[in-house]
Amino acid sequence: MLETTIAAIRPADEGAMAAARELHGRLTKPAGSLGLLEELSVRLAGLAGACPPPLPEPAAVAIFAGDHGVHAQGVSPWPQEVTGQMIGNFLAGGAVVNAFARQAGASVTVVDVGVATPLPTGPVADPAAASDPAAASDPAGLDPAAPESALPDPTRPDPAGRDATVLDPAVPRLVVASVRRGTRDLTVTAALTRDEALAAVQTGIRIADELIDAGAGILLTGDMGIGNTTPAAALIAAFTGADPLDATGRGTGIDDPTYAHKVAVVRAALVRHAPDPTDPLGVLAAVGGLEHAALAGLILGAAARRTPVLLDGVIAVSAALAAAAFAPAAVGAMVAGHRSAEPGATVALRHLGLDPLIDLGLRLGEGTGALLALPVVTGAVRVLHEVATFDSAGVAEK
Amino acid sequence: MLETTIAAIRPADEGAMAAARELHGRLTKPAGSLGLLEELSVRLAGLAGACPPPLPEPAAVAIFAGDHGVHAQGVSPWPQEVTGQMIGNFLAGGAVVNAFARQAGASVTVVDVGVATPLPTGPVADPAAASDPAAASDPAGLDPAAPESALPDPTRPDPAGRDATVLDPAVPRLVVASVRRGTRDLTVTAALTRDEALAAVQTGIRIADELIDAGAGILLTGDMGIGNTTPAAALIAAFTGADPLDATGRGTGIDDPTYAHKVAVVRAALVRHAPDPTDPLGVLAAVGGLEHAALAGLILGAAARRTPVLLDGVIAVSAALAAAAFAPAAVGAMVAGHRSAEPGATVALRHLGLDPLIDLGLRLGEGTGALLALPVVTGAVRVLHEVATFDSAGVAEK
Repeated sequence: MLETTIAAIRPADEGAMAAARELHGRLTKPAGSLGLLEELSVRLAGLAGACPPPLPEPAAVAIFAGDHGVHAQGVSPWPQEVTGQMIGNFLAGGAVVNAFARQAGASVTVVDVGVATPLPTGPVADPAAASDPAAASDPAGLDPAAPESALPDPTRPDPAGRDATVLDPAVPRLVVASVRRGTRDLTVTAALTRDEALAAVQTGIRIADELIDAGAGILLTGDMGIGNTTPAAALIAAFTGADPLDATGRGTGIDDPTYAHKVAVVRAALVRHAPDPTDPLGVLAAVGGLEHAALAGLILGAAARRTPVLLDGVIAVSAALAAAAFAPAAVGAMVAGHRSAEPGATVALRHLGLDPLIDLGLRLGEGTGALLALPVVTGAVRVLHEVATFDSAGVAEK
Repeated sequence: MLETTIAAIRPADEGAMAAARELHGRLTKPAGSLGLLEELSVRLAGLAGACPPPLPEPAAVAIFAGDHGVHAQGVSPWPQEVTGQMIGNFLAGGAVVNAFARQAGASVTVVDVGVATPLPTGPVADPAAASDPAAASDPAGLDPAAPESALPDPTRPDPAGRDATVLDPAVPRLVVASVRRGTRDLTVTAALTRDEALAAVQTGIRIADELIDAGAGILLTGDMGIGNTTPAAALIAAFTGADPLDATGRGTGIDDPTYAHKVAVVRAALVRHAPDPTDPLGVLAAVGGLEHAALAGLILGAAARRTPVLLDGVIAVSAALAAAAFAPAAVGAMVAGHRSAEPGATVALRHLGLDPLIDLGLRLGEGTGALLALPVVTGAVRVLHEVATFDSAGVAEK
């Protein structure tokens, strides 16, 4: 599945890009006056192989959630239970990502790829989640000591079986596709086996296919996982060669001693595993996370379907580095939503050659930065659909 | 009218700002993780005097259009007729501002405060505009040699008389409130008399009142006027003390010799008129434009009604400097939509102490940059309305 996905990713269509540039020159505005929006619309024409490219509607946010063995090293001040509790908040519509998604008319799909604690089934959860047998009634499956070979089938369909409402912006949706109940501690051993990393990547590809099959015109990356900026920093250092000090940030907010410790943890992990950036699955397994691997799969799946994928923050761009290592042409499907306050995000964006659309010091994750950038992407494409030419409007040129 | 408007502008409500900061600390997100959006929402709480402040809906774009005597100096490669032709494009819905306004659900009001050429009445124009007697059937009124004392009444109501559709996002609307058919050449004489500048300011105040009376929750500045970046540069230099070289940009696209000439024109105008920055009406009259003066009025009118005004590019921020000179507390109502590619915009924003929300190299005007930033403003406020608290969502804190 991964190989066929990678093989389906093609370079941009130069003819469609040229057509978009030519059309921009005829629209009723000074040449170049829309700045980065013009180049963005040209890229999206190249991705779609059409000018104008389709409007990126409807939008679908996919939030991949996982936990991290490295949490035991004290890299985050938040208890690990918050990952699962926030899934409840997402499904109840109470998180920032929900507020922004409602505003943008985007659907929210929450995918448990590796949450350590039982998912909430109480009053904050969505009824669909509460009726999900995997989430509510399989305590053995939630046992962190469960045999690791008993991997859930990553191709299992959405247990709620609500294909018709996959893109319903009013109802956040839960997909349970847990590979394992959190990664191992990357300071001690590889975070994942190669098979586990592959299972998470394939889950991401499957979610991309499902959302695009349901009609999504653009995918937005989201993530949730207490401690997940530590593996993100390790991935960024591994793929870009950056020093861990430059790739590591303060995540959701840590003090100076914790920050110094976090940098040391990332540095030690890189020394221990010596990940090979030409082997992206190996890098994801050694120092990554299940949500990072799944996001890499989502990006690859979108690229294979010539569908744009709007990247959120540091977790997304660390996954994007893995996707680009799998398939360099996948970068053509990526749009950088915003510049996260995490320094590693800027390192990764530079490596990918992407300019972010928004720079507001956000460091929340969840998909919030991507959602804020979505109207910019839609607007860039809309110009090619709706703006009159000098000829048609009877406006003189200079 | 100007004096009562200025007198109505009050400082921010510190209590509402403190309440918004306190609420941010209880919402299910790490403290500060929404970056500049948090401070923006706090400012809007202070403006409204309420926490949460009202959602900034519906949005209304006001595009003030005028022409410029300095055009005769060769500061723009575009013919002056384009100003009036673009009004036709706006009313037909074919411009970039229309595409972005449709996407955002914002209404578009086009205000002729001083277009030099007859407004279009052909097939590209909106029926309401074609039936506007002032626009279609008063050739004497369009005579640039008409007596200057025959100023139109700036308080004349919208000739189309469509109060019920003032905020209809589907129908761009024309208001004719022409003070004179373009300014005088500021390299030769004052661009406007004080009375003319005042009439334009009062038109802006009236439009703000009309839109807010119709229910607008936020006003967006727009502008159209071939040559209008030259008076904008002069205003910015006059109000901030910046050198004309730093305040002047390439507008819609000029070559090096034209740019050098434009800087010299701005420098000569400042030497000739020696405008006093503590006399904003005098500055607007000496080196401004009718759309700049009207935008200053719109901003003052919004501030007096404690309604946010989202600034577009360099024309808007040059007008914002005038508004701040009239009433320093008016800055509390201003939100900087984007950082224009024009260097003078950055000079002005720094002087006003405003951080722009979007920075994409736009230099189109019309209100396009403000419209792209609108979802960020709405999102910032929406967080205070819709996001769950740690307590209510059952999420643990760090």
